[in-house]
Amino acid sequence: MPERRIYLPPGKMPTAWYNVVADMKTPPAPYLHPGTRQPVGPDDLSAIFPDAIIGQEVATERYIDIPGEVIDAYNQYRPSPLHRALRLEQALGTKAKIYYKYEGVSPAGSHKPNSAIPQAFYNKKAGIKRLATETGAGQWGSSLALACNWFGLECTVYMVKVSYFQKPYRRTLMRLWGAEVFASPSDKTNTGREVLAQDPESNGSLGIAISEAVEDAAQRADTNYALGSVLNHVLLHQTVIGQEAYEQLKSVDEYPDIVIGCCGGGSNFGGIALPFIGQKLRGEAPKATRFVGAEPAACPTLTRGEFRYDFGDVAKFTPLVEMYTLGHTFMPAGIHAGGLRYHGMSTIISRLAHDGIIEPNAYTQNSCFSAAEIFAKCEGIVPAPESSHAIRAAIDEAILAKAKGTEPTILFCLSGHGFLDLASYESYIDGNLTDFELPEETLQAALAESAI
Amino acid sequence: MPERRIYLPPGKMPTAWYNVVADMKTPPAPYLHPGTRQPVGPDDLSAIFPDAIIGQEVATERYIDIPGEVIDAYNQYRPSPLHRALRLEQALGTKAKIYYKYEGVSPAGSHKPNSAIPQAFYNKKAGIKRLATETGAGQWGSSLALACNWFGLECTVYMVKVSYFQKPYRRTLMRLWGAEVFASPSDKTNTGREVLAQDPESNGSLGIAISEAVEDAAQRADTNYALGSVLNHVLLHQTVIGQEAYEQLKSVDEYPDIVIGCCGGGSNFGGIALPFIGQKLRGEAPKATRFVGAEPAACPTLTRGEFRYDFGDVAKFTPLVEMYTLGHTFMPAGIHAGGLRYHGMSTIISRLAHDGIIEPNAYTQNSCFSAAEIFAKCEGIVPAPESSHAIRAAIDEAILAKAKGTEPTILFCLSGHGFLDLASYESYIDGNLTDFELPEETLQAALAESAI
Repeated sequence: MPERRIYLPPGKMPTAWYNVVADMKTPPAPYLHPGTRQPVGPDDLSAIFPDAIIGQEVATERYIDIPGEVIDAYNQYRPSPLHRALRLEQALGTKAKIYYKYEGVSPAGSHKPNSAIPQAFYNKKAGIKRLATETGAGQWGSSLALACNWFGLECTVYMVKVSYFQKPYRRTLMRLWGAEVFASPSDKTNTGREVLAQDPESNGSLGIAISEAVEDAAQRADTNYALGSVLNHVLLHQTVIGQEAYEQLKSVDEYPDIVIGCCGGGSNFGGIALPFIGQKLRGEAPKATRFVGAEPAACPTLTRGEFRYDFGDVAKFTPLVEMYTLGHTFMPAGIHAGGLRYHGMSTIISRLAHDGIIEPNAYTQNSCFSAAEIFAKCEGIVPAPESSHAIRAAIDEAILAKAKGTEPTILFCLSGHGFLDLASYESYIDGNLTDFELPEETLQAALAESAI
Repeated sequence: MPERRIYLPPGKMPTAWYNVVADMKTPPAPYLHPGTRQPVGPDDLSAIFPDAIIGQEVATERYIDIPGEVIDAYNQYRPSPLHRALRLEQALGTKAKIYYKYEGVSPAGSHKPNSAIPQAFYNKKAGIKRLATETGAGQWGSSLALACNWFGLECTVYMVKVSYFQKPYRRTLMRLWGAEVFASPSDKTNTGREVLAQDPESNGSLGIAISEAVEDAAQRADTNYALGSVLNHVLLHQTVIGQEAYEQLKSVDEYPDIVIGCCGGGSNFGGIALPFIGQKLRGEAPKATRFVGAEPAACPTLTRGEFRYDFGDVAKFTPLVEMYTLGHTFMPAGIHAGGLRYHGMSTIISRLAHDGIIEPNAYTQNSCFSAAEIFAKCEGIVPAPESSHAIRAAIDEAILAKAKGTEPTILFCLSGHGFLDLASYESYIDGNLTDFELPEETLQAALAESAI
C-alpha cells in the first residue's frame, strides 16, 4: 500500500525561491505608471514597498535566496505534507494517481503566510513600523496579521464590508493576532469617504479595499503596503509549494502529467505550477506536463477576460498591469470562493496563459462544492471554497483519464481548509447555493467601462 | 537554533496501543451493573459494543496490536507533529523547554479520531451497520461521523441541543461526512420524549444525550453505541499520542519533567500521559516526572468531586463507574470548553489521581483564554478552548520554573484547534467572557441528589 502522506524532512525545504521570469520566452510587460503611463521605476514604488520587495518584483535571476529568518518562520508549518488521495482514487475508480499538496496546515489555514512572512520580514528590516493591506474573506489579512505579529510590526487591514459582517471569524483571527481591522469602504481614507458619500450602504469590493490600503500606506512614512497575490514577488514567494512538491514526488519516483491550481490572483496556482513550468520551459521536464488553472464561472478572468493593460483597483491608484482582466470596475457575483473574486490576474500567469503554457477552465459554484463534498468524504479534509475549484478540475481529469484508458499522475494544490467556510457547506447541503454564469452583456459593459 | 517541529517518520508510528492497567498498582474497580450492582460481564455490554471493544475494555495485557486497517487510516494524519514552543518560551523569558504535541492536524481538528477510527473498524468487522453516539460541542460526533464514513457505517449523533443551535458548524461537518444529527433531547427515544414532556424548552446535556444514544443502540440489533472518552478502550486508543511524543522527544535527547493535558473525560490527557506514567510505574522513567491534569473551575471533577461509584449518564442506563464525580445530575455552567463539561472522569485517570500519580488543577475561563491568546500570538495556532486549559497549566509551570531558577522540560497535549470556536475568542477579546466558580452549596446539592 503506498503511503497516504509523503514527508519532506525539514532539512530538504527549499533555500531559494524560483523566479520563472528567468525562463519565460516573453517576459511579462512592465507595469505602467497610472498617471504618466510610462514604465514604473523603483522610485515610483518606494512610497509603499521596501527596496528588497521592489528588487524581487523586477528580478530576472532564476533563484533568490530565502533569508534564514524567513526559513525559520516557515518551519512553524513547512514543509507542508503531500498527500496521495488513495480513497478519492478508489471512489472515482480511476487509475490516475492523484496527489495534493496541502497548504491548509499553516496557522492561518492557507498558503498566504508563504508571502506574508517574507513581506513582513523585509519591511521590518527596512525600518517600517506598520503595514496596511486589504482582504476579502480574510485569508490574506489574517496571514499578514500573523506575520506582522511575529516580526513586531503593526498591521491595519481594510476588509471588504460584506465579509466583515457576514464572515466575522477571520476578522476575529486578525484581532487575535493583534491587527486593526476596518470595514471597507471606511471613513479612514479619501477613497472610502468618497464611496460612502455616493453610497452609504456600499458593501465594498476588493478593488475599493486595495485603494484604501494603498492610500493609507502612501500617506504615512512609517507605513508600507502589502498585497497577497497578483504581483511577481508574491508568486516568487509561493514557489516553495511547487519546489517542495517536486522533491516529495521525486522521493516516490513520480512526476506530474497534470498540475492544477485554483486561480484568483494567481498566487497558489503560481506557487504549485511555476517550478514545473520552469522545468518545461528549460526543456528539463521528463513529461509533456499540462498546467490547468481553475477559476469560477462567476469571475472567469482567464477564460473570458481581455489580455491588455488595466488597473488593479477601482480608484486607479495601482500601476497599469498587462493581464487578463474583466475590467477594473467589474463586480463579481457573491460566490463563496471570496478569494477568487478579483477582476484581474497576475501578469506572469496571464502571459503564460496567453502563450498557451497554461490551460484555464471555469467551473460553477455547485459543481465545485459537489467536488469538495466527495473530497471531504474521502480524504477527510474540508477544503476552502477556493480550493474546491482545483478539486473539481482534478476529479474531471481523473474521470476523463478513466474514459480514455490513461493513467496520468495528477498534482493539485489544496490551498486551504474550509473550517471557516462551513456556512457555505450548510447552504450547499441544503440545496441553497446559486450558480452564477457571467452574462456576456455584463462582461462587455464592464470591459467597455474599464477601457483605459 | 533547535527545530520548531520534530518529525516522526510514518514508519516509526506505534504499532500497538499501551494499556496502563497492566502497570497500575491498584487497577480500576470493575464497572457495576446499573440494576443488579454486580460487576458487569461481557454479556451485559454486548448489546451495545462489539466483542473486540469489550475485550479491550477489560484487557490486562500491556500492549494490544493496532490492526493494519487502523494504522492505514491513522496515516491520513498521523504521526502528528511535536512542536517546540520557541516563541512562547522567548515571550515568557523562561529557561523551561516547552513542547506540545499537536492533535489538531486530524481532519476533524482534534485527537478524537484516534479512537473513532478503531471503534468504527471493530464495529464494521463485527457486522454492525450503524453506530449511535452523543456529542456536546461536536468534536467527538464529527470524528465518529468521519470514521463511520471511511468504514462504511451509518452514523447517528445526538447533539446537545444548545450546541446544535449555537455552534452549528460541527453539525455541518457531521452532515458533510454523512451522519444524521438530532438535537438532544429528541423525540426519537423514550429518554428524549420524557425530558421534553417535563420541559419542552430543555437545552439538553451530555448526560441526556448519552442516555438517548445508548437507548437507540440497545434497541436495534444492527446498531451499536460508541463513546468518545471516559472508557478504558478509548484511553487505550489515545495512547498513540504519548507513544509518538516519547519517540519524538527521544530523537532530540529529551524526556519530560512535567506532562500536561486538559481533562474532560480523560481521553487526551490519558493519551499523552499514560505511556509516560507507565514508565514511571515500572521504574523505567529517567526522571521523577509530574503529571498535571488541567480542568475547568466550572466543572472541577478531579479537584472537587467525590471518588466513588456513580452513573455516567442522567437516565442511569450506563454501568456504575468508580471515579471522581460531581454527581450524575450535575449541570455545569455554560463555559466555551464544551468538551470539559462532564460530571465524571475516566476510572483509570480517577484512580491514578486518587493514588497521587496525577496532580489535578482547576482554571477559570478567562485565565485559559488569556493563555490561549498568548499562545496564538506566539505559535500561530489558535487552540480549542478545551486545550487552552493545558496551555494555562504549561505557562504557569514555565513561569514558576523561572521564579525557582529551574529549567524543566514541559510537554503538553494541544488536543485541538479553535477554528470552530472563534465566536468565543471574539467574546474574550471584547471582554464579555464570564468566569464561573462552582459554589460549594451547588456542588454539595448535586452530590447529595446523585447519591447511589
